[in-house]
Amino acid sequence: MADPSTAPPLTRASVQAAHKLIEPYIHKTPVLTNATLDRLASTPRTEAELEGTEWAGRTPAKPVLRFWFKCENFQKIGAFKARGAFHAIERLKQEPGWAENGGREKGVVTHSSGNHAQALSLAAHLSSIPCHIIMPSNSIPAKIAATRSYHSRITFSGPTAPEREATTAEVMAATGARLVPPYDHPDIILGQGTAALELQAQTQDGHGVTLHGIITPCGGGGLLSGTALACEGTPTLVFSAEPTHQGADDLRRGLQTGTRIERVTTTTIADGLRTPVGKIPWSIIAGERKLVRAGYGVSEGEIKRALRLVYERMKVVVEPSAVVGLAVALFNEEFRALVEQEGGEDGWDLGVVFSGGNVNLNVLGELLG
Amino acid sequence: MADPSTAPPLTRASVQAAHKLIEPYIHKTPVLTNATLDRLASTPRTEAELEGTEWAGRTPAKPVLRFWFKCENFQKIGAFKARGAFHAIERLKQEPGWAENGGREKGVVTHSSGNHAQALSLAAHLSSIPCHIIMPSNSIPAKIAATRSYHSRITFSGPTAPEREATTAEVMAATGARLVPPYDHPDIILGQGTAALELQAQTQDGHGVTLHGIITPCGGGGLLSGTALACEGTPTLVFSAEPTHQGADDLRRGLQTGTRIERVTTTTIADGLRTPVGKIPWSIIAGERKLVRAGYGVSEGEIKRALRLVYERMKVVVEPSAVVGLAVALFNEEFRALVEQEGGEDGWDLGVVFSGGNVNLNVLGELLG
Repeated sequence: MADPSTAPPLTRASVQAAHKLIEPYIHKTPVLTNATLDRLASTPRTEAELEGTEWAGRTPAKPVLRFWFKCENFQKIGAFKARGAFHAIERLKQEPGWAENGGREKGVVTHSSGNHAQALSLAAHLSSIPCHIIMPSNSIPAKIAATRSYHSRITFSGPTAPEREATTAEVMAATGARLVPPYDHPDIILGQGTAALELQAQTQDGHGVTLHGIITPCGGGGLLSGTALACEGTPTLVFSAEPTHQGADDLRRGLQTGTRIERVTTTTIADGLRTPVGKIPWSIIAGERKLVRAGYGVSEGEIKRALRLVYERMKVVVEPSAVVGLAVALFNEEFRALVEQEGGEDGWDLGVVFSGGNVNLNVLGELLG
Repeated sequence: MADPSTAPPLTRASVQAAHKLIEPYIHKTPVLTNATLDRLASTPRTEAELEGTEWAGRTPAKPVLRFWFKCENFQKIGAFKARGAFHAIERLKQEPGWAENGGREKGVVTHSSGNHAQALSLAAHLSSIPCHIIMPSNSIPAKIAATRSYHSRITFSGPTAPEREATTAEVMAATGARLVPPYDHPDIILGQGTAALELQAQTQDGHGVTLHGIITPCGGGGLLSGTALACEGTPTLVFSAEPTHQGADDLRRGLQTGTRIERVTTTTIADGLRTPVGKIPWSIIAGERKLVRAGYGVSEGEIKRALRLVYERMKVVVEPSAVVGLAVALFNEEFRALVEQEGGEDGWDLGVVFSGGNVNLNVLGELLG
């Protein structure tokens, strides 16, 4: 990964430059609409539904919402992570001295058992750069096989974070491979921001629609902070969505106190969102520029309901993490009241990023049942 | 439904006329491609894989295949059936004397618990025509609720075919409603054929590709015979795909003997394909013009494998019936040998109709596990 000190400035223009770099490698994913989900979101929830929630007794909000779903579940490797990974690899290839010092042979390394590992593996492989993946030894065989299928070299580590980091350091020392972290690096953030850039252009050019807002899930915060950069200086507001289960809504809670929460232990079904938000993403989201308007949480049950609606009504395969933004728009009364207040009768055109589609098919029945 | 004796001739031009009539009401569904599935289909199966099948000991075929998936799972009500239903209703509205004799108030009726019932309900409702649906009393609550949500009037019958027909006759006598059968009528067949018409135009205009063939599932045969009419006189050959489980491949077997098989009892997981092919579809498929080149069968296991591949690799939700065409192209050595022989090194561009996406989400885990 390119040295952070040589990274481009964290601006919309840099996201546009990132898009130029990665355009040949990624899919320009489609943007879908759905009349049924628009109608559902634009129907006030009943007072009975609000009972037992923090909004019990309130008059249900009456927002008008038109959704524009950016389908990164159709992206290469099935998730937006391909964008950041291709950008990291392309930037590395441009780094002065990297190739001359044997960087191409030394390769890259990351620790992840999820979408980032597959994304980096694919991006490195297509540039004929060796890629080392550190995976916990208790990873499920399907994930190991999927990562192997992208030609990466797997090194197993113990399951805890310190064990993984120790193994990563060993591989780096032995091979000279460059670390490509999953979200806490400018090149990754700028790459992830390209999805929002495309989404804005697709609604504008294709339909003459300027989005009032974009809502994305937030785990480590790469997608969210990249989206925030892509929308800076445009009329499009940016919102964050997180699960509330066992405190997985660390960004939302951090925004309330003004301090980043550095540790989270949660088993939320939105397994891509179990990580606390990273330092650089936080600085973009909550720092001086404060490029994210607000963060919202949803329950596990609400994520499952949104998941089921997407399978039933849109007929697309998404992973639980992908639908937390939709769940906020359907079920979070704070967000819905904001849209009612600011959107009025005309309502809002809301971009919703479906971040990925890599769901474990063996447990899909339980999730949807 | 319009009187069959006044139906338009069963020709490509009539399918084109049907398309004009229904265009305002249906979705022009997208056509997807997938490099991974192309590669899989263009890789010979191993001899080990063929062991235990009827092709054991044969040299595996080496076809080259490029798929063009027509996504009727994204159609209104989630299946191609919307096309035939809207066409039937539009034709009825044009029938001389129908409205004058109170046809609009008397409404329409069908017996089905599946996609046709929902399609007819929607089409009738949008024209403010009452719709009666005869459903077996043991239908699952989800299907009853789905049909109710389209504003139809449900009458329950006993579960056997004679009981259903008796109840249908009673409702017709009591209300004067016109019967709209699910496949055995020219208007339905012409409506279903419009999917293939769009598919041909989408590959031709969008990509300069003339399809070598289109493969569709065959239950009652409305979609298959409509597709055959749409392709008559064009370079595109038409193929049929059926499950072999408990003789569900009645069309394939009928084509071998030259006699339509009128009864089938099967519990294939491709639940839309449990019906034997109807009289009028048969006359188009196997009659003098013989507009379908050949029919192929696949096992339940092959359907499940194809289903899993579509969820994993394409990230779209399809029902088991929808993937039997893909399963034929991936696993049926007769078909694959034909493509190798006729397509040679250049291979074939094959249209595959994904007929619907209305899968029972509660059993999806079992299907994909």
